[in-house]
Amino acid sequence: MAPVAAAQPRLTPAATQAALDALKQLLGDRFSAAQVVRDQHGRDESWAMPLPPDAVVFPHSTEEVVEVVKICAAHGLPIIPYGAGTSLEGHVTAVQGGVSIDLMQMNRILQVNAEDLDVVVQPGVRRKQLNEYLRDTGLFFPIDPGADASIGGMVSTRASGTNAVRYGTMRENVLALTVVMADGRVIRTSKRAKKSAAGYDLTRLYIGSEGTLGIITEITVKLYGIPEAMAAATCSFASLEGAVNSVIQTIQAGIPVARIELLDDVQARAINEYSKLSLPVQNMLMLEFHGSEAGVAEQAEMVQAIASEHGGEGFQWATKAEDRAKMWEARHAAAYACKALRKGCEIMATDVCVPISRLTECILETKDDVVKTGLTAPLVGHVGDGNFHLSVVVDRSNPQEVATVEEFSERLVHRALRMEGTCTGEHGIGRGKMKYLTAEHGEAVAVMRAIKKALDPDNLMNPGKIFSI
Amino acid sequence: MAPVAAAQPRLTPAATQAALDALKQLLGDRFSAAQVVRDQHGRDESWAMPLPPDAVVFPHSTEEVVEVVKICAAHGLPIIPYGAGTSLEGHVTAVQGGVSIDLMQMNRILQVNAEDLDVVVQPGVRRKQLNEYLRDTGLFFPIDPGADASIGGMVSTRASGTNAVRYGTMRENVLALTVVMADGRVIRTSKRAKKSAAGYDLTRLYIGSEGTLGIITEITVKLYGIPEAMAAATCSFASLEGAVNSVIQTIQAGIPVARIELLDDVQARAINEYSKLSLPVQNMLMLEFHGSEAGVAEQAEMVQAIASEHGGEGFQWATKAEDRAKMWEARHAAAYACKALRKGCEIMATDVCVPISRLTECILETKDDVVKTGLTAPLVGHVGDGNFHLSVVVDRSNPQEVATVEEFSERLVHRALRMEGTCTGEHGIGRGKMKYLTAEHGEAVAVMRAIKKALDPDNLMNPGKIFSI
Repeated sequence: MAPVAAAQPRLTPAATQAALDALKQLLGDRFSAAQVVRDQHGRDESWAMPLPPDAVVFPHSTEEVVEVVKICAAHGLPIIPYGAGTSLEGHVTAVQGGVSIDLMQMNRILQVNAEDLDVVVQPGVRRKQLNEYLRDTGLFFPIDPGADASIGGMVSTRASGTNAVRYGTMRENVLALTVVMADGRVIRTSKRAKKSAAGYDLTRLYIGSEGTLGIITEITVKLYGIPEAMAAATCSFASLEGAVNSVIQTIQAGIPVARIELLDDVQARAINEYSKLSLPVQNMLMLEFHGSEAGVAEQAEMVQAIASEHGGEGFQWATKAEDRAKMWEARHAAAYACKALRKGCEIMATDVCVPISRLTECILETKDDVVKTGLTAPLVGHVGDGNFHLSVVVDRSNPQEVATVEEFSERLVHRALRMEGTCTGEHGIGRGKMKYLTAEHGEAVAVMRAIKKALDPDNLMNPGKIFSI
Repeated sequence: MAPVAAAQPRLTPAATQAALDALKQLLGDRFSAAQVVRDQHGRDESWAMPLPPDAVVFPHSTEEVVEVVKICAAHGLPIIPYGAGTSLEGHVTAVQGGVSIDLMQMNRILQVNAEDLDVVVQPGVRRKQLNEYLRDTGLFFPIDPGADASIGGMVSTRASGTNAVRYGTMRENVLALTVVMADGRVIRTSKRAKKSAAGYDLTRLYIGSEGTLGIITEITVKLYGIPEAMAAATCSFASLEGAVNSVIQTIQAGIPVARIELLDDVQARAINEYSKLSLPVQNMLMLEFHGSEAGVAEQAEMVQAIASEHGGEGFQWATKAEDRAKMWEARHAAAYACKALRKGCEIMATDVCVPISRLTECILETKDDVVKTGLTAPLVGHVGDGNFHLSVVVDRSNPQEVATVEEFSERLVHRALRMEGTCTGEHGIGRGKMKYLTAEHGEAVAVMRAIKKALDPDNLMNPGKIFSI
């Protein structure tokens, strides 16, 4: 991505200052216009150019969010919700200036409904914090995008990750939301029943809306019983094709794997170097099985048989919790491991997702493209869902390299779209993928815009994301 | 429900006639204004007063639907989509006159993507037809609302039914939709990848929108491998509480039952009479287990142990396909069995759904109310989801009885709402539940209205449903 132009503030400096003064008066020392705080809130983990907001506020309650929104609405100042800052498409950058609402101090777990397998949290609760808290209940929240993201951010980007193949994405795991609308009204999208046919599905509308339709201040998510048995394994393949075909056959056979992750040889090497491991430098699958003792054994046996047919070998099992944790930590460190490959470089993370029947074709064509283009681009993937990432290592100071990476990324997206896939399986559109939205959705983008306009007529909510308005 | 006033046509007779003439010219003998055809399309299986449309059209393609919509939009004539006519809240009645678009001749199965576990169908495909068609592929479509509904209708009402406890509802099982908007534009809501984070979730917005936001003309739904093993069982309980508590404990233990249905003694008796069976006239659970041979045995054993603890006895197993089919046919005939209890009477079907921790309380209070009120109201329920129905038998010619039933229904809805539940788990709002929408969703209804207005500014699409506009 070429360095974008600096922010284009919506308001004049004087008008902005008037709004900031009102916010400062409301929140006192939970308002900050310090440069370091602004800088920190103008960036996420993407390679999108940081664009700091004019100020940052730290509300403690839905009521305070309402007051913040009312002040911003009265002055026409843009509002950018901010969580853990781990998004990957520049979601939190202040494209048109405005105030960043940092929701991380709203991090209380409000109500564990163990009998109903759900929990009500504030948006600043992080997923690891939630699972720590739940430990004694025998329940867990399965969605795991790798980063220790906030639940609010995960709702907003429709996050998923390694467990989605079994437990679904945020789309399937949110029961209800409390949302502060652009005009300060507060809505609750649903009651707490497991299903309902009462009116439009506002819960799902807000999941993945990236802060453009309102600010989420309370979330009810589903929980699951910690499985009686869990086992994880790695397995190596001489050919990438063999690894991918094993995944496809596993999914088609309906085996309820909890995780089935692909890493190519380049990624395995990077992880070895970064995480001080000694994985075989080959294409590999990382697997996890959840269930009863007998169920896990049965699943493992079936998958082992499928993998063997496709040239999989060297199954290494991890059944102890600490061994499994170590393995998944290494997997989650994949992006950092890639970054360490070339000093001073950044990572451009791709995120296509295709129907699983096209996955082998898509991955092989893409690997071929990587080789031809001469990129350093390790591959990991939530392949059970047809979703894979390349961590393209790029030296941003080299315009030619940046251009090459951009062209590669564009070819990849159009390849996925040609195969009835999507430009983003789980990272979201943010600023980075806006250019592909129409290629993917065509006329449906006009419908999305109409909804945006109906619910946020003054375009106050995270402007310049998803759509170029 | 008191007999409603007759339809209040939107247009003058002359203006209506001009629109109908244009439709007739477009579709020839696939246009009908015959009284018998209109009458048939003005009613569903609810006890809502039938309100016939001014005419019925039978398009064969998305393109024809577009032409129909354009004509209606030009003349301001309301459009009511019609499928199998099995809805339960008066969804298809022509409240403001207009044309019924019967989509049942669009009943082709367009593309089976067996490797991706999905299928693309036209909206008039019925669920039994789909499963017949799929039989040789080893795949099936699990959503089973009882009636042999059309897939289009099931999308529109966010249907679910007996299998939802394991496979989810229509909300979780649709990948993509093609929709003709109120102005004739055609959108596709999503590609065919299993997940995507690209923009607003229009797929979910249309699921459950009851024809008020556009006409669905193509649907991609998920499929599942037919399980290696299936077993079904019935089990009786002296106390209703014991039956419900068995369900709650089964769900809380995370046992992946495929079906877990409750029938009270009144319902068991009604089914015996209607389906010529000899079920014990007691509260009972009907269960089904899907999985590997070992998995099914394991699940069955666990559930049997739980049921025994709560006074369950007389487990009767059905493993042969024909025995299972017979058992579920009897279950699906429950509503007709109720209707047969009192000659000349109709059925008012309730549909609340509550968090499972409140299910026992909700059912016991409700049964108590039934007894006190002196109603004939057998109870069945998809209790694994917290959803249950009473089939209240009512003599519509007796205004006092109608009033009593209405008051009972209202008490039931408010009881469920008080317990953080919903007025409708799976039937939808239609015309019958409009009065409860604000009690359930509060300010969120205004957001729903804003979306409706943005996407259908002239209120052409199934007006007078969900909202009173």
